[in-house]
Amino acid sequence: MKELIERIRREGKVLDGGILKVDSFVNHQVDAGLMDACGREFARRFAGIGATKVLTAEISGIAPALAAALHLGLPVVYARKTKPITMPDAVLLTVAPSHTKGVMTELIVSPEYLGKGERVLIIDDFLASGATIMGLVRLAQAAGAAIVGVGALIEKSFEGGRAVLAPLGVPVESLAAIKSMENGKIVFDE
Amino acid sequence: MKELIERIRREGKVLDGGILKVDSFVNHQVDAGLMDACGREFARRFAGIGATKVLTAEISGIAPALAAALHLGLPVVYARKTKPITMPDAVLLTVAPSHTKGVMTELIVSPEYLGKGERVLIIDDFLASGATIMGLVRLAQAAGAAIVGVGALIEKSFEGGRAVLAPLGVPVESLAAIKSMENGKIVFDE
Repeated sequence: MKELIERIRREGKVLDGGILKVDSFVNHQVDAGLMDACGREFARRFAGIGATKVLTAEISGIAPALAAALHLGLPVVYARKTKPITMPDAVLLTVAPSHTKGVMTELIVSPEYLGKGERVLIIDDFLASGATIMGLVRLAQAAGAAIVGVGALIEKSFEGGRAVLAPLGVPVESLAAIKSMENGKIVFDE
Repeated sequence: MKELIERIRREGKVLDGGILKVDSFVNHQVDAGLMDACGREFARRFAGIGATKVLTAEISGIAPALAAALHLGLPVVYARKTKPITMPDAVLLTVAPSHTKGVMTELIVSPEYLGKGERVLIIDDFLASGATIMGLVRLAQAAGAAIVGVGALIEKSFEGGRAVLAPLGVPVESLAAIKSMENGKIVFDE
């Protein structure tokens, strides 16, 4: 998606450890108009998959998932990383390694909002190793729901997440795919 | 706002400790269409205040703040509760008591995205005691920004937050105000 790629080119910064900083428009400050345009693009790409719910992980997944859900006319559920007191005692829980924190984090969903018969579209900010998204896949599968698609704003193709998701046999879409960040230079897969 | 009040009436649950559970449309599952309508209503109410940025706190503030920012044509910054590695070493930080967790939580904003001359509209999911919102006020003031308005989806009028915010001298708007939750019964201020 041209608008997103241009913005990454202009404001994205490559930090140590292979981290792409996009805090000025995705991860701390959010460009609401750009996010809305990304949501519209996700809705266009996933129009035909018959999704009934969008699933994401707090915190950074919320903005793109909400925008996609709005344009698809669906509710969105965001997996929590700590169990709030409003959640029932029996929950769906898995653990996934956090890319930017270097630790394992829990992903928790209440069975009240994810269950059998749901057709789940997973949306997240990044598709890198695929570890967080596979965590969401496990939660949906544990709930008896079907995964019908995976979308990410930004894919780091060189981290191999797409191959990890391939066995799911569902469409995987990213709006900006980066094939290399060597020496601080961002090269897109165009 | 009638649509939000009706939804709280239908799906809101009063839990022990004065907690209002609205996890089916605000706090865990989010009704994207309702959130968009709330954003439009915030934009209408705050059309004349000359805001340049929306500020909120992760996690539950993100959805309403993003929706408001979209309809106001503004960027949104969400204060983080843990410092991500993409953030510079010198940050704006305050602590505020968490209503639903019973502990103090940090609120952290990078000075890259909040500074002198900004006119800040604070949007959050709840206005209860006003403690989280006053934390955001302190961050904005520390950055040299002006507060120009405060909006919340749901106000618990009986917790006194509005009086805490009064000295700011800015418009405070809530889309649904609850005056009592005694014996599990939600009574609105209409």
